[in-house]
Amino acid sequence: MTGSAYWSSLASSLRPYIPGEQPRERKFIKLNTNENPYPPSPKVIEAINNTATEALRLYPDPSSTALREAVAERWSIKREEVFVGNGSDEILAFAFAAFFETRGNEALLFPNITYSFYPVYAALWNIVFKTPALTADFSINPEDYKQKSGGVIFANPNAPTGRALDRKTLKEIAQAQEKNKKVFIVDEAYIGFSHESGMGSMVPFIKECPNLLVVRTLSKDASLAGLRSGYACGSEELIQGLYRLKDSFNSYPLDRLAQAASIAAVRDSAYYDKINRRVCQTRDRTQEVLISMGFDVIPSQANFIFASPPVSSKSAETGAAWFLEALREKGILIRHFKQPEIKNYLRISVGTDEDMDAFLAACREIIS
Amino acid sequence: MTGSAYWSSLASSLRPYIPGEQPRERKFIKLNTNENPYPPSPKVIEAINNTATEALRLYPDPSSTALREAVAERWSIKREEVFVGNGSDEILAFAFAAFFETRGNEALLFPNITYSFYPVYAALWNIVFKTPALTADFSINPEDYKQKSGGVIFANPNAPTGRALDRKTLKEIAQAQEKNKKVFIVDEAYIGFSHESGMGSMVPFIKECPNLLVVRTLSKDASLAGLRSGYACGSEELIQGLYRLKDSFNSYPLDRLAQAASIAAVRDSAYYDKINRRVCQTRDRTQEVLISMGFDVIPSQANFIFASPPVSSKSAETGAAWFLEALREKGILIRHFKQPEIKNYLRISVGTDEDMDAFLAACREIIS
Repeated sequence: MTGSAYWSSLASSLRPYIPGEQPRERKFIKLNTNENPYPPSPKVIEAINNTATEALRLYPDPSSTALREAVAERWSIKREEVFVGNGSDEILAFAFAAFFETRGNEALLFPNITYSFYPVYAALWNIVFKTPALTADFSINPEDYKQKSGGVIFANPNAPTGRALDRKTLKEIAQAQEKNKKVFIVDEAYIGFSHESGMGSMVPFIKECPNLLVVRTLSKDASLAGLRSGYACGSEELIQGLYRLKDSFNSYPLDRLAQAASIAAVRDSAYYDKINRRVCQTRDRTQEVLISMGFDVIPSQANFIFASPPVSSKSAETGAAWFLEALREKGILIRHFKQPEIKNYLRISVGTDEDMDAFLAACREIIS
Repeated sequence: MTGSAYWSSLASSLRPYIPGEQPRERKFIKLNTNENPYPPSPKVIEAINNTATEALRLYPDPSSTALREAVAERWSIKREEVFVGNGSDEILAFAFAAFFETRGNEALLFPNITYSFYPVYAALWNIVFKTPALTADFSINPEDYKQKSGGVIFANPNAPTGRALDRKTLKEIAQAQEKNKKVFIVDEAYIGFSHESGMGSMVPFIKECPNLLVVRTLSKDASLAGLRSGYACGSEELIQGLYRLKDSFNSYPLDRLAQAASIAAVRDSAYYDKINRRVCQTRDRTQEVLISMGFDVIPSQANFIFASPPVSSKSAETGAAWFLEALREKGILIRHFKQPEIKNYLRISVGTDEDMDAFLAACREIIS
């Protein structure tokens, strides 16, 4: 349905985001939505079972105080510097409205290749934006984000490229935007898989950078995509800006189960460090094999691999989409994006070692 | 904090909703947020425990297909006529954006006394509205909502008055608004406690009224305020309008646990009919005692009582607020609204028989 007399002009104008496929009909090796291949911490399951009681008849704490305290403790910051939401998608939706301005103002900046929900949020809130191009090797050029703007947002590591900027560079961007009191949002969905020297979370920098908002999700590095929970860290001014939106939208975005489970997850970093290190080892090994098979692999700091298959495209227009179809026939799901700049590339989530061996074997068959 | 250089003009302009208090420090008899005094169905708890598994690492079904099918089955409608959300608050937030227009257009209509989140949603989406006054006995005058408008929304039974309109009257409002293709939203948060002749849910009318959206929550009549789940029923055009907003905001608003628990709740109407009948009996009995004590009681069709204490106000300005304070000192929480038209009234959620006996005893002490 593309139109209705009942829809508002806003509803009619939207071009909604399309999430990766969640297959229901058959069993696939699922390397298409960047889920963690390892289960959540056993303490998370225990917390849920302990919370599934008669008390579900009562509203949850509307400001998720205990969860915010757990996040604050983990990062040695204050509870007032933490916001929580129903997945980082909800937090991003609030953040666009809270910090970026509508048309007629200076443009928000984000890369032409990044999380494809950003332009959808911008349309939802009528925010004007510009999209500087990545460099030829799919890197973000930091200079593009130091210019006068309506604010800056990108994912670090970026998606779907997997490339990351170091913390020194990110701090320089924050400081450049601070000159005009504009907000810089770093979306750290994948930072838990980024261990190179100089890389890492920007949360420790929120005290020196009052315009820096760091958004995190429990979906990937806490293996809780099925729970919908995320948080943001920033100065009290930024956090209160988010609360103004949240309290104009939904008093209780996080239910009792999600609050309890998220607390358990945030506290069990020992478990998660272990499984995420394993994901990184599997990623690095898989990248090496793909390179040896002739793939063009962009070195990833995330829990996915961004690579272009060595066999020439079947169609100039659809790029590597044929390779996704060939893998699908073999029972393996990955993701392909239609944007012209990246149409020859595939995004492959990192699964278990067994998943990746099956994937590599399928690639060999397809290529030969 | 009332202002910040980092906030957008939208964020700065908002006047967020303030939910009822969720006390953390001491044990109260909680009659302030219309929670059900009885526990959720045991099948709900079982469903949560069965879903708290390793599969939480995987995203939930973004369109909650199985839950929508369960709702459709309950009402003998199609899955495509059902939308689900993270509580009915989220659904209402989407609905305001999907169906009502911004300033410069015909005004949305809702009563001057109704769910106090409506003006907050209107501000969030910059929607122009008018608020026809309730009659002297706190009834909605149906004629006010048959005039040319930008759409209509109210709660039925209304909050915090507890008064309901019958289905014939609601259908007439829908038909009047259909002439200009405007949407009529009936917020049925409390309909599960409305059993008088002619009253009841409008869901069966969505087929004849393509502009009628019925919004339901599991918080009250399914005793799941702590879970955050709600649904809306309407024509496919309306449901698709809601999906355009949802898919521009959050791909996965309902997590795996909430989807499974909601399915179990929607299917166990036998259990809920039983506990909700008990709530209604307790309500009716409590109302009679309050009347005998000299309270002015508005006859309620909801799981709360709206009543004015017999003792003259301590202050003309704050009305019955002093009575709330007196009850609070005795360990009982109720709610008071500052709006001048209802400042002499109190909203008392219906608890167990024991809760209400304690409440009535406290009232007697305060009055004497």
